Amino acid sequence: MIRSRSNRAIKEVIQLQKKSKVRNASELFVVEGLRLVAEIPPAQIKKIYVSEKCYKQHKNQIVTYSYPCEMVSDEVFSYMSDTKSPQGILGIVRQRRYGLPELLREEKTLLLLLETLQDPGNLGTIFRTAEAAGVTGIIMDGDCVDMYHPKVIRSTMGTIFRMPFVVVEDLLLCLEELKEKKIRVYGTDLMGKVDYCAERYQGGLAFLVGNEGNGLSQALLEKSDVCLKIPMSGQVESLNAAVATAVLLYEVRRQRGL
Amino acid sequence: MIRSRSNRAIKEVIQLQKKSKVRNASELFVVEGLRLVAEIPPAQIKKIYVSEKCYKQHKNQIVTYSYPCEMVSDEVFSYMSDTKSPQGILGIVRQRRYGLPELLREEKTLLLLLETLQDPGNLGTIFRTAEAAGVTGIIMDGDCVDMYHPKVIRSTMGTIFRMPFVVVEDLLLCLEELKEKKIRVYGTDLMGKVDYCAERYQGGLAFLVGNEGNGLSQALLEKSDVCLKIPMSGQVESLNAAVATAVLLYEVRRQRGL
Repeated sequence: MIRSRSNRAIKEVIQLQKKSKVRNASELFVVEGLRLVAEIPPAQIKKIYVSEKCYKQHKNQIVTYSYPCEMVSDEVFSYMSDTKSPQGILGIVRQRRYGLPELLREEKTLLLLLETLQDPGNLGTIFRTAEAAGVTGIIMDGDCVDMYHPKVIRSTMGTIFRMPFVVVEDLLLCLEELKEKKIRVYGTDLMGKVDYCAERYQGGLAFLVGNEGNGLSQALLEKSDVCLKIPMSGQVESLNAAVATAVLLYEVRRQRGL
Repeated sequence: MIRSRSNRAIKEVIQLQKKSKVRNASELFVVEGLRLVAEIPPAQIKKIYVSEKCYKQHKNQIVTYSYPCEMVSDEVFSYMSDTKSPQGILGIVRQRRYGLPELLREEKTLLLLLETLQDPGNLGTIFRTAEAAGVTGIIMDGDCVDMYHPKVIRSTMGTIFRMPFVVVEDLLLCLEELKEKKIRVYGTDLMGKVDYCAERYQGGLAFLVGNEGNGLSQALLEKSDVCLKIPMSGQVESLNAAVATAVLLYEVRRQRGL
């Protein structure tokens, strides 16, 4: 059992929790909590750390694990956890890398393209909502918050393990590829011309989602095939990014009669 | 200019920021930031505090204020602010209290009933989305996070000043009143029997929104007229409360052709 904060393995976990550079270089990330750890695809698990207390409470569940599992003192676990009330279990997980061609292979492609999303909770919630609505893949630019940020992972509620996604350098270039594949690209804007309910969503589709504060960049709006508007009552200036995405995706789902 | 943290007025602001009891007893709350402060209905403003720096930057805007305005040093402002990067302006605002009869007066009543919502960001986002979707009032139980919590205020993006809402002791009793007014009450549940798109939303309506972790209580579900289901693909177990609410409300809006 590890009882020291200065143990090398513990230091590595903390680096993975805190630094996206370390996560990207090692192609690893950290997943916390009993429920999320149980959802990790076995091939991606590198190691599990369990606190003494958690091990005692969930022994039966944990002894069935077939991968490396190490116990740490409760105090050390609190130190390495990203949450205020840690459940006492975390997994070091291998990142799964997808390629853009994988995301464009499906027949009923339904993609999200995320531009510079900054709020970890928003990004995670968009992933979770996207899976529920039937999205087949997510493409984001390098200015989005790191997908493997602990708070993003938590907010996805497990979708991180199931939703194919890629980070691209240039969303504009990516749009060219989508157009070649005959995927219709929708922007949304407060000045959009088409009510989102008036559009018929057929064939391959992609929705652009803009930054929380600034919305979509003009360059991306100009490259989109249709600029949609979500009507709003009262004096509301815009919807939360995850909320707007949900409204659009569930209208597609409704029309497709999924 | 106030330069001391131990100034009595500063201490009062901090109590209002931190303690819901103090907010409720004084019927006051705090609003921060240039944009939100500009949206406060004048009759509700008790006092404005401005940092030295903010005053210099936005002098023209601030000198037109006709209500009591006091300058504080930048250091004291940081101390009294609830945010990490304060904009340097905050207002002490009188709470506006609504009564249930006011919320039931409209012809096209569209209500939200919130049960034990715990996340301040969620609650604020639900208010913002509700205004955009055309909701006429919000009813919540006393176990919801305090509506005047600084983070809730921020997330409403100004809807706090425009959306009528009441806190009731017992949502079940409240449902009785709604039924007398012929307002149809919808619950949502993973085991719901009616696809939310299959329902025709006419007349007065109310949607129940449950706690983030546990969903709606059985007692409320049993008292609702219809139990709706939002279909989900993949392995998603539930939607975020604000996202689910947005999907329902925008389907009502679509059907009503607003």
